[in-house]
Amino acid sequence: MPHEIRILTEAQLREIVTLDGEMLDVIEAGFEALAGGDVVMPPVLSMAIAEHHGEVDVKTAYVPGFDGFALKVSPGFFDNPKLGLPSLNGLMILFSATTGLVRAVFLDNGYLTDIRTAAAGGIAARHLAPKVDTMGVIGTGVQARLQARAAFLARPYRRCLVWGRDPQRAAQCAADIAEATGAQCEAVSEIAPLVAQSQLVVTTTPATAPLITAEMLHPGLHITAMGSDQSGKTEIAPQALGAADLYVCDRVSQCALMGELRGARAVGLMPDTPPELGEIIAGTAEGRQGGNQITICDLTGTGVQDTAIATHVAARLGTAGTVISA
Amino acid sequence: MPHEIRILTEAQLREIVTLDGEMLDVIEAGFEALAGGDVVMPPVLSMAIAEHHGEVDVKTAYVPGFDGFALKVSPGFFDNPKLGLPSLNGLMILFSATTGLVRAVFLDNGYLTDIRTAAAGGIAARHLAPKVDTMGVIGTGVQARLQARAAFLARPYRRCLVWGRDPQRAAQCAADIAEATGAQCEAVSEIAPLVAQSQLVVTTTPATAPLITAEMLHPGLHITAMGSDQSGKTEIAPQALGAADLYVCDRVSQCALMGELRGARAVGLMPDTPPELGEIIAGTAEGRQGGNQITICDLTGTGVQDTAIATHVAARLGTAGTVISA
Repeated sequence: MPHEIRILTEAQLREIVTLDGEMLDVIEAGFEALAGGDVVMPPVLSMAIAEHHGEVDVKTAYVPGFDGFALKVSPGFFDNPKLGLPSLNGLMILFSATTGLVRAVFLDNGYLTDIRTAAAGGIAARHLAPKVDTMGVIGTGVQARLQARAAFLARPYRRCLVWGRDPQRAAQCAADIAEATGAQCEAVSEIAPLVAQSQLVVTTTPATAPLITAEMLHPGLHITAMGSDQSGKTEIAPQALGAADLYVCDRVSQCALMGELRGARAVGLMPDTPPELGEIIAGTAEGRQGGNQITICDLTGTGVQDTAIATHVAARLGTAGTVISA
Repeated sequence: MPHEIRILTEAQLREIVTLDGEMLDVIEAGFEALAGGDVVMPPVLSMAIAEHHGEVDVKTAYVPGFDGFALKVSPGFFDNPKLGLPSLNGLMILFSATTGLVRAVFLDNGYLTDIRTAAAGGIAARHLAPKVDTMGVIGTGVQARLQARAAFLARPYRRCLVWGRDPQRAAQCAADIAEATGAQCEAVSEIAPLVAQSQLVVTTTPATAPLITAEMLHPGLHITAMGSDQSGKTEIAPQALGAADLYVCDRVSQCALMGELRGARAVGLMPDTPPELGEIIAGTAEGRQGGNQITICDLTGTGVQDTAIATHVAARLGTAGTVISA
C-alpha cells in the first residue's frame, strides 16, 4: 500500500526555515529532551573513504514526544572544491516515530545541519555567556557567519572581531557579519588579542592543533568550540579546558570521542563527567555563576538536533515540495 | 549549484530489477570484493524504539571499483500489522563514491533489501550446496518464498518441503513456491523429517530458540541460516554449528554480534575465525569438499550487498523515476 512521501530541495527548505529565535527554541527543546534521559541516540556511524579524501557521518535520535525521528547523512569530500563542488553535502530523512514509514526526504545539501549547528551555538550563548559587548569569531567559513548570527540572537553584541588564517577571507567574513547583525565588525591578525577583548568567542575551524591556550583565558569569558567533530580535531588546549570554571558538553559520550574532551582526557585531564547543555537548560545542572566565571561549551553535533529541526520543518511544509506516492 | 537526483518508487524499482541469475552475479561480485580487503564497512548502526515496538538498522559500505556507495535504512515496527501496514519498510540512498553527492533515492519499502538478501542465499547455495533433489524451507514469509526462488536459480531442485508454525501459511507458501519454480512443493508438520529429506535447507524465521539441532544433521546437507540478524535471534543450535564440516559467515564480525556464531561462542564453541562467503567465491578459502560434507552458511546481511544492488539498479534506470534538481 503506497504512502505519500514529501521531497524538498535545499532552495525550498531555505524558504521555509531560517536561523531565528524560533529555531533556537526548537533546538533548545531537543537539548532539554536529551537531558530527560529517555532519548535514544546511537553512536555516530562513520565511514572514511580515504581513496577519495572523503568521510560519511550518519546521525539519528529518537526523542519521546516528537512524532518523527530524523536520520541525517553528512558526506564530506574534501577534494570537491577542485571540481567546483562544495565539500559538505548530504540529506535528512524524516520517519514516523510510530510506524517507521518515510515521511519526508530533505535534499538539503547540509543546509538544515548548518542551521541546527548554529542554533546550538546560540543556545550555548543564551545559557552560558555573560553580558557581551564584543564577540570573537575564529574561522571564516559558513559556520563562522552563522554562529555569529546565532550568538547575536542570544547576546546582541556591539562589536565583532574575526580571525582567520587568510586575512582576505577574514575581512569578507567580518563584512558579512556586519551586514547580517549591524554590529561593528573587523578582521584581526592574532587570536590572543581577539580573545582578550571578547566576552564570547566561537571557534569554527577544522583545526587539528589548539588555537586557544590556557593563557588566553580571562574572567568573564565564554567560549563555544564547535569545530571539533572528529577524533583528529581540536581547537582548545587541554589546559584551557581544565582551567575553566565550567566545561559543558552537548553530549559527554560524543565529546569524549570526537570533541575537545578527547584531547584533555588523553593527557590525563578532565577525568570527571562534565554536565551537558541540556541539563543546564533543564535546570538539573548548574550553569554560569556570575559574570566573572570562565565557561566553555563543546559542541560535536547531535542526532537530537536533527530530529528537532526535521520535525519542525515537517510541521511548516504547507504544500511545498514534491509528493511521491511510494 | 543544484545537481540532479533521481527518485524511484517501489513500483518503479520492481519493473527494473528482479531476482534472477544476473542479480546473483551482481551480489556475488560484492561478496568477492568484500574478501579483497579494501572494502570499508562500518558496524551496523542500530536504534531501538521500544516505546513503539520498533527498531531501525542502518548499513553502508564503500567498495573500491564501484562508482557509488549505498546507505540503507531499514525500520522494523512490529505493531504495524495491527494498523494494516507492513512491519518492514525503509529506503536506500545512492551516493557518488568520488564526491559524496546524492545520486538517487530508492523509496523501495525494503524491496531491494529483500532481493539482495535472497540473492545471498542463492550464492551460498551456488558455492556450498551439494546436488539438490529436495529443498527444505523453514519459515513462511516473504524471504521463505524468495530464498526458495534464489536457491532454485543455483540448484534447480525437483521437490520442496516447507515448514511453518502455522500449517495454513506453510501450505500457501508451498503453493507459491511451486508456482514460481515448477517444483513439487508441500507443507510438512515437523522440522526433523524436512531436514532428513533435504540436501539444502534455508531457515528464514525470526526464531529466538534453535529450530535445527545437531541430531538433525546428515551427510550431504547444506544449511543457509538467514533469519538471525539481531543479538536475540537464533535458528541453529550451537552444537550443530560445531558439528558441521564447514561453517561460513557472510561477515565474521557481524555473525559474532548478531548471527548464529554469537550463540555458539556464548557457550564456548567455535573459537576459531571461520571463513567468509566472499573468500570462498574468491578462492582464497576452501568450500565444500565433496558431496557428503555438512556445510552451514550464516547470513546477517551486509552493506556491501546494498552497495552492489544500488549501483546495479542505477546503471539500469534508463529514464525511470522522478528527477529533482537539488
